[in-house]
Amino acid sequence: MKVGVFDSGIGGLTVVKSLLEHQLFEEIIYFGDTARVPYGIKDKNTIVRYSLEALEFFKNFDIDLLITACNTVSAYALEEMRSQAPFDVIGVVEPGIIATQNALDDKHSNILVLATQATINSKAYETLLQRADFKNITSKATGLFVPIIEEGLFEGEVLQSVMTHYFKEVPCPDAIILGCTHFPLISQTIGSYFGHKATLIHSGEAIVEYLEAHYKFEKKFSNPKLKFFASENPEALRAIARDWLSVET
Amino acid sequence: MKVGVFDSGIGGLTVVKSLLEHQLFEEIIYFGDTARVPYGIKDKNTIVRYSLEALEFFKNFDIDLLITACNTVSAYALEEMRSQAPFDVIGVVEPGIIATQNALDDKHSNILVLATQATINSKAYETLLQRADFKNITSKATGLFVPIIEEGLFEGEVLQSVMTHYFKEVPCPDAIILGCTHFPLISQTIGSYFGHKATLIHSGEAIVEYLEAHYKFEKKFSNPKLKFFASENPEALRAIARDWLSVET
Repeated sequence: MKVGVFDSGIGGLTVVKSLLEHQLFEEIIYFGDTARVPYGIKDKNTIVRYSLEALEFFKNFDIDLLITACNTVSAYALEEMRSQAPFDVIGVVEPGIIATQNALDDKHSNILVLATQATINSKAYETLLQRADFKNITSKATGLFVPIIEEGLFEGEVLQSVMTHYFKEVPCPDAIILGCTHFPLISQTIGSYFGHKATLIHSGEAIVEYLEAHYKFEKKFSNPKLKFFASENPEALRAIARDWLSVET
Repeated sequence: MKVGVFDSGIGGLTVVKSLLEHQLFEEIIYFGDTARVPYGIKDKNTIVRYSLEALEFFKNFDIDLLITACNTVSAYALEEMRSQAPFDVIGVVEPGIIATQNALDDKHSNILVLATQATINSKAYETLLQRADFKNITSKATGLFVPIIEEGLFEGEVLQSVMTHYFKEVPCPDAIILGCTHFPLISQTIGSYFGHKATLIHSGEAIVEYLEAHYKFEKKFSNPKLKFFASENPEALRAIARDWLSVET
């Protein structure tokens, strides 16, 4: 199977990392909209428009499946993309909810959803968690994590002070949904803030679980074809991919 | 005179504030490219392309002058814009340099340039300061200030820890160039970090000085016409303008 992975920027490479580790696909085609990143501070209309333009790009490839790695796109544009796509389109929100359900037995567990302002505004996670009968949900727009991670500050005083700013009144969570592609890069630091007591829900892992439950993968591909595209400076994105994923690009 | 003010987002309103205080223009037309903000993390090619698109927009109005309030645009796209514009185009870099020269007698004064990654990479300020014979220039890409300001954190622990991160090895400056439209909003906090000893160079004030030196303003306009446009959600931009500038929009 050939899969497309769409993200607003470089963050979706954390999802590609999970796909590579599980050797699910023969070919992975990645597109990051680096010329218009970030999406998480923008409006629904803009996010939907950009996502449909990305969809047109993926129509040029003979893919079987498109994953929208970006949680903001998954929260706002999935239905519109599905209605215009000749292939399956899977977001990261629903797989994240299923992974949360699998991790928690008690519907009164404290769940902390971390995401961009746009994703939190959409209430996509909150609505599905309530539908799954969870009672104690705290949603936090933690948008500053994104530029801090892009600045390479995965731990240390800046991140600590930002975590204190966001989390000081948050009840100690049993599960934390990392609702933005960047957040797995600081999952250790976030987990440590809450004493390593919470289960961390990572979109990449969640989507692998989801794919294995819904599709037949008959063989493993240890050396898939990889193509990386970006709306500006694809060479910079490829360099990051080589570094993060230890692959040839 | 009618003036256009172009910015990548809302930050350029700090320049509009200075223009309004000095009552220079009969009409001010503002455009913020909020659907593609921020520019300061993007490539030269992208910045130039977006700037020329904004120029086309301003050609629809009968303006006498266009101010690029965004330092990143001023650093990268000014020549290209000038070559295609039927009106004068003024950036904020050169006025900032002139204001610095007016403020400092000693060419060995310590100058600290704060700007986005793209503006710092361009070396626009550094080159012009060296040409003006200044010897001690420190340039610092302080991109995290932008989302922190947009989160409304104009002081407090988050900003303190980020300033410590950026400034811990910076020599105590005699002048600080606030090389990004957002930074005037935290000028007090930045000044206080260095014991209020440095002169702060603010683009809005610098451009007023520059305009008064280069153009004839024969009368004052205490109640200019104002028009605010944005590439997404102009209503949100107008609301911020009403709040920041205390004007009707």
